[in-house]
Amino acid sequence: MIVTFLTDFGLQDDFVGTCHGVIARIAPDASVIDITHGIEPQAVLQGAIVLRNTLPYMPVGVHLAVVDPGVGSARRAVALRTRDGRLFVGPDNGLLLLAAQEIDAAHELVNYRLEPVSRTFHARDIFSPAAAHLAAGVALEELGPAVDPATLVRVDIPDRPTVLMIDRFGNIATNIERLPAPGTRVEVSFALDRYYAVVAETFADAAPGELILYRDSYGMVTLAISNGSAARLTGAAVGDELVLT
Amino acid sequence: MIVTFLTDFGLQDDFVGTCHGVIARIAPDASVIDITHGIEPQAVLQGAIVLRNTLPYMPVGVHLAVVDPGVGSARRAVALRTRDGRLFVGPDNGLLLLAAQEIDAAHELVNYRLEPVSRTFHARDIFSPAAAHLAAGVALEELGPAVDPATLVRVDIPDRPTVLMIDRFGNIATNIERLPAPGTRVEVSFALDRYYAVVAETFADAAPGELILYRDSYGMVTLAISNGSAARLTGAAVGDELVLT
Amino acid sequence: MIVTFLTDFGLQDDFVGTCHGVIARIAPDASVIDITHGIEPQAVLQGAIVLRNTLPYMPVGVHLAVVDPGVGSARRAVALRTRDGRLFVGPDNGLLLLAAQEIDAAHELVNYRLEPVSRTFHARDIFSPAAAHLAAGVALEELGPAVDPATLVRVDIPDRPTVLMIDRFGNIATNIERLPAPGTRVEVSFALDRYYAVVAETFADAAPGELILYRDSYGMVTLAISNGSAARLTGAAVGDELVLT
Repeated sequence: MIVTFLTDFGLQDDFVGTCHGVIARIAPDASVIDITHGIEPQAVLQGAIVLRNTLPYMPVGVHLAVVDPGVGSARRAVALRTRDGRLFVGPDNGLLLLAAQEIDAAHELVNYRLEPVSRTFHARDIFSPAAAHLAAGVALEELGPAVDPATLVRVDIPDRPTVLMIDRFGNIATNIERLPAPGTRVEVSFALDRYYAVVAETFADAAPGELILYRDSYGMVTLAISNGSAARLTGAAVGDELVLT
Repeated sequence: MIVTFLTDFGLQDDFVGTCHGVIARIAPDASVIDITHGIEPQAVLQGAIVLRNTLPYMPVGVHLAVVDPGVGSARRAVALRTRDGRLFVGPDNGLLLLAAQEIDAAHELVNYRLEPVSRTFHARDIFSPAAAHLAAGVALEELGPAVDPATLVRVDIPDRPTVLMIDRFGNIATNIERLPAPGTRVEVSFALDRYYAVVAETFADAAPGELILYRDSYGMVTLAISNGSAARLTGAAVGDELVLT
Repeated sequence: MIVTFLTDFGLQDDFVGTCHGVIARIAPDASVIDITHGIEPQAVLQGAIVLRNTLPYMPVGVHLAVVDPGVGSARRAVALRTRDGRLFVGPDNGLLLLAAQEIDAAHELVNYRLEPVSRTFHARDIFSPAAAHLAAGVALEELGPAVDPATLVRVDIPDRPTVLMIDRFGNIATNIERLPAPGTRVEVSFALDRYYAVVAETFADAAPGELILYRDSYGMVTLAISNGSAARLTGAAVGDELVLT
């Protein structure tokens, strides 16, 4: 059974490796695919979007995700099953709910914890053990009491045009849905700063150094510069609003 | 057989991937768990602590660790077996000895090297081949001559309160053992700089922006700020001494 | 079957993880070894050198590499087979051709794509599916029409002494082939800046803080400082020419 794994832990510390160890002890035959551990710290919305974007490329399996600013608080830890047979494990803070669309069962993670459960590393003590037990064949219902899916916390994609993610190359992904026709010049404003960009299908359609707006490989409208960083040019940050005119 | 792998190599270069290749050529059925490769360069003590902290979460297997400022010098390369059946491979500089407690055999790594052995990449040429051969079933005694465990180099945890590690979130882990009762306010001094912190059980117990002292998920007394970086605030670095009053 | 994987994607985003997912869906029994994903963005020459350097340490398998500044342009996507039975998958921009020396077949990647193919993420939509199908036993000839190996794009190692790569420790790898005898003092010039270095066999041969020139573990003449960063000292960047006198 495949376990996919997405967090905001980064790879500098042992957090990810320790969870791999926990999973291997419980489910020696499971294979773990690390989707990414580079979600911005505590950026639940970004994590939810990346999980949704990448899920179609992942084998059906157990999908473990931990971006958890509420660790140690009363937020629930949950496992979900969707109609297509995928299983999800993570905090009940909306992280799973853009990817997990048609939920047919949800259970709180009460059993199979590593005791004593720490206050700050539930990925190790609660989430990874749950994912590993699911991967090893334990039934979802065994993990803890059923939860009404309608009570699960949801994240909202902002209504207004907003920066959702910035990648390593400085490309700025937004929640904008409509893109003008290729070749159109648009004005992009962040607060008081204005830039001109051209709508393109690919980097090759723009002059070097020119800002472009294009639909990225996951379908998200993205602001970028060929051979440059749109984020550095504009100073844009996740959560910033922008206006296209 | 599981091989766990901890180094200070980082993931930017090919060092870790090359070792994975070496292991896969020798022991195709071994699985490698990367505990972390983010130990500070040449920080043997930090590596030893992280290996000790994470080992209980790892399957019994071959535990390969390389933080090796003495590569190319006369320091020995060794493999150890502990009473619980774990095998350890690494340089004889103390890196393995906080995790490997009850050593019942130690051997120097003389056989099964990749020749010609380079001067600077013993992880590839000496340590990974040894770990892989152990994982493939070669007996510890085959690797080279026995070493008296009493002669192995040890690392010492400093006696005085000292910064041992700083993680990605800027949390400062120390070797302090005793923590006052939750709610106590303490003064934390680094050289000439003083800060106030409150003893907490979790981040939720403190006001945003407030320094807290808490016991982290491995039991280490740690200085942190909710939604902030204690390391950036204090400028503390690994090895700095601190005083709590 | 082993798939090795080398890119310039970094590990902050999901690019690498998504490719792992694509491979696992097509070839569930394949194992992926990540050689590195830390090639400098779009540094085809660096990628080609690292692939060549590390290949002897990798099991025979499918060798997937993507450093692809021409993604979305007319550059071909190819798979190659060499006389030793290795298979290579990547863009036709020279990336594969320092490692793949004696090519006995080359095919363009036309079949087995993930449709619709995006403009910017061919690693996901073209290269990983091809590598995975090869790993799952599909014949090279099935991937698309044969390509004359003589028409493949090649990269050239610069003739003049040049910085080829800089690693995490600030060590500067060059294309210099001849190294004076150990102990020789040489002058190293970058444009207007001059430094003195001593030829060494290992770091232990130099005083702390002294620049050394040595042959690294892959045989490349490299400029380094014990416990320091030669790159930071000199400000050297990939592609800079240097002169030894």
